[in-house]
Amino acid sequence: MPDKRATSRWEDLQPAAENGLFDRRAFFTGGAALAAAMTGYSFSEAARAQTLTDDPWSAAPGTPTGPYESPSRFENHVVRQITNPNGEPRGQQSKTPHHLIDGTFTPNGLHSVISRTGAPDIDPDRHQLVIHGLVRQPLRFTLDRLMRYPMESRFAFVECGGNSAPLWSPEAMDATVQQLHGLVSCAEWTGIPLTTLLEETGIDPAAKWIIAEGSDALAPHRSVPMGKVLDDAMIALFQNGERIMPGNGYPMRLLLPGWEGNMQVKWLRRIELVTQPSMSIYEARTYTQILPGGDAYKFHFLQEVKSFITRPSPTVNLSEPGFYEISGVAYSATGRISKVLVSADGGQTWAEAALQDPVHPKAFTRFRLPWRWDGGPAVLQSRAWDESGNFQPTREQIIAHRGVASRVPGSTNAFPNQHYNGPTSWSVDEAGEVKHVYA
Amino acid sequence: MPDKRATSRWEDLQPAAENGLFDRRAFFTGGAALAAAMTGYSFSEAARAQTLTDDPWSAAPGTPTGPYESPSRFENHVVRQITNPNGEPRGQQSKTPHHLIDGTFTPNGLHSVISRTGAPDIDPDRHQLVIHGLVRQPLRFTLDRLMRYPMESRFAFVECGGNSAPLWSPEAMDATVQQLHGLVSCAEWTGIPLTTLLEETGIDPAAKWIIAEGSDALAPHRSVPMGKVLDDAMIALFQNGERIMPGNGYPMRLLLPGWEGNMQVKWLRRIELVTQPSMSIYEARTYTQILPGGDAYKFHFLQEVKSFITRPSPTVNLSEPGFYEISGVAYSATGRISKVLVSADGGQTWAEAALQDPVHPKAFTRFRLPWRWDGGPAVLQSRAWDESGNFQPTREQIIAHRGVASRVPGSTNAFPNQHYNGPTSWSVDEAGEVKHVYA
Repeated sequence: MPDKRATSRWEDLQPAAENGLFDRRAFFTGGAALAAAMTGYSFSEAARAQTLTDDPWSAAPGTPTGPYESPSRFENHVVRQITNPNGEPRGQQSKTPHHLIDGTFTPNGLHSVISRTGAPDIDPDRHQLVIHGLVRQPLRFTLDRLMRYPMESRFAFVECGGNSAPLWSPEAMDATVQQLHGLVSCAEWTGIPLTTLLEETGIDPAAKWIIAEGSDALAPHRSVPMGKVLDDAMIALFQNGERIMPGNGYPMRLLLPGWEGNMQVKWLRRIELVTQPSMSIYEARTYTQILPGGDAYKFHFLQEVKSFITRPSPTVNLSEPGFYEISGVAYSATGRISKVLVSADGGQTWAEAALQDPVHPKAFTRFRLPWRWDGGPAVLQSRAWDESGNFQPTREQIIAHRGVASRVPGSTNAFPNQHYNGPTSWSVDEAGEVKHVYA
Repeated sequence: MPDKRATSRWEDLQPAAENGLFDRRAFFTGGAALAAAMTGYSFSEAARAQTLTDDPWSAAPGTPTGPYESPSRFENHVVRQITNPNGEPRGQQSKTPHHLIDGTFTPNGLHSVISRTGAPDIDPDRHQLVIHGLVRQPLRFTLDRLMRYPMESRFAFVECGGNSAPLWSPEAMDATVQQLHGLVSCAEWTGIPLTTLLEETGIDPAAKWIIAEGSDALAPHRSVPMGKVLDDAMIALFQNGERIMPGNGYPMRLLLPGWEGNMQVKWLRRIELVTQPSMSIYEARTYTQILPGGDAYKFHFLQEVKSFITRPSPTVNLSEPGFYEISGVAYSATGRISKVLVSADGGQTWAEAALQDPVHPKAFTRFRLPWRWDGGPAVLQSRAWDESGNFQPTREQIIAHRGVASRVPGSTNAFPNQHYNGPTSWSVDEAGEVKHVYA
């Protein structure tokens, strides 16, 4: 039975929106009201701590740690969802389990990966990066050489243009946040600004694009306009402190913060300065989106502002009415996230979430908001804004502009299938089960 | 042969200290002068890129990624240095290879660990945290419950009081940065402010300390003054985005940013609010330092401001004269790092390093400085300052205060053996070999 003190503190809390959302400032007032609310309501059955007995794992010495540590065996379910596990001759996807992790970036074991022909087994002592084309002096760089250059570290998300593709479906798919949004991840990348290397090769003023090529078997390449190169392109050597993972381009990748993942060429071996884009298959076909009228975007570089709630979310259900934290990630190619709004009533009313400091540009921003679930139906949504004034459209708006997925005559693909950045909705039923819906 | 343009740009660079140190602003001027310097000098023999041929790994499809990714097999040497690998009945240490990583935090596989009796194999569904003692209402928290509370994420270093102990030796040990300083690491920790849980249990005003107890076999415990608890203590559940590693306290640890690692109790099962510290063996003996006059510090909570250069460093030698980046980490229990100075002439002259933004309080700060090695002898050092006005003493100053390691009558330990925070010196000989020295 709730004590009077808890009840009165709970009632002091001002709701910020309907259906149980509290103001983000509840985080910053010392927590008193919020904590008392938990005792009075959701934790009313909390058992008193009485006897203290050893658990079985306390009865004997444990296990020594090894040279390189891995998660507990009890976390074996926290893995990427992968396609094509046997590496048959087609692409492969590995999706991040956003609903099972927290914090502001993605651990290396769980970072999303897309590859066309698998990860090449590159010997870093033999690999070289060549920069040539419209330069004063073409150069080859070994990894040992690159390690001597001035480096910088920055957090950046990497997202596939096709991430969130299931949201184009006419009917809401029964899917987890991993299945819907698992092709975006965020890491701290450390490497060399590409401009530093180009200062050394020199840049012919006729150069308007670079072509970046990987050393995986297909030698996939993409064209990048020189403006982005001069802005913030990086030759990344480290991912979250250690050398880049095999699936993310070991020993080096091109990083183009906020741009389509496919352009951020992995296993990078060659950069050519040119006057025109190459119109490779990835820019002429795979990552070209056909619009409802039959036109297509010629290029679609930026990954637009997006957010989604990671907890609660499908399979991460609610066990009983009471307090929960709503937590998710937001990110944008056009700067820092400035605001995330959360709704618990399907978009009728909204409350502003707290953003985890520091907010980095073109990186994940963790947002959080206190929520009291009253045991009734709810529909959770988030929408994000960035410092450039860009924001997530409503689902209605983006569908009006882009359509829903359908077969295009003569094509094997359903369009649209890329760059969905509308909201994601999770319904909560009276049993606390969370499902993906359109709302 | 250097071209004239490169030479003239090089000569435009203003030295910031003797023996080849350049101003940190060289990073922020577009890199033109610096890059040209590399061409003109260290990279004078750079081969022109002519023929482009496939490397063997480009000739066939690569390897699909698995559900949880690990570093390339070519990085198998990037591991922790461990003692007691077979888990005999004594403690174990795992030291971070700082010389082989970069960025602003430590990847989970390489985070340092000290344990007394190994890592217990805790079932997270059965583990509970009990808070009792001088509280209004003692409570037990399951992990499922804790996952519903408001969380926060913060970067924090965790350092053993005995880190850097070899620096107390009368003679400089022939050792790597991993051997000298491998018992400090930094991670992003996500969890629940302990104050949030204490608001729920209530705090009896008579409570001045907490006793935190782990569930590893020895049930080790430490006392923490309530001031620190109310300031920034956290029940950490996630480490760099995923659940805490087994060696770091899975499924939960106490985080006390900046304080002695041993106090940040791992495999946390119990917090008792009390009036007096328990004077456990870890506070009455193991982490008590005897001073030269025979007195001892009763407690030694804070890990003082410290810095060390990670690259170049022993085993990470210089291959030829020319440009190198000097890179290292700095951190302090008393706030943000405000300044790091670097010397290339054994402390005679100093230049200010660039600090990687953002600078977090009580966390690693990566510093970097351009250096041109002229092929002659050099001695590299760093010294750090923090926003509270604390700074690394010179070696002379700290030795004058604390002494050098020697046996204490009746003790099996050599004292001092903890809390060294003077500078670390790396000598560079004419062959480019880097060695630990005192200077």
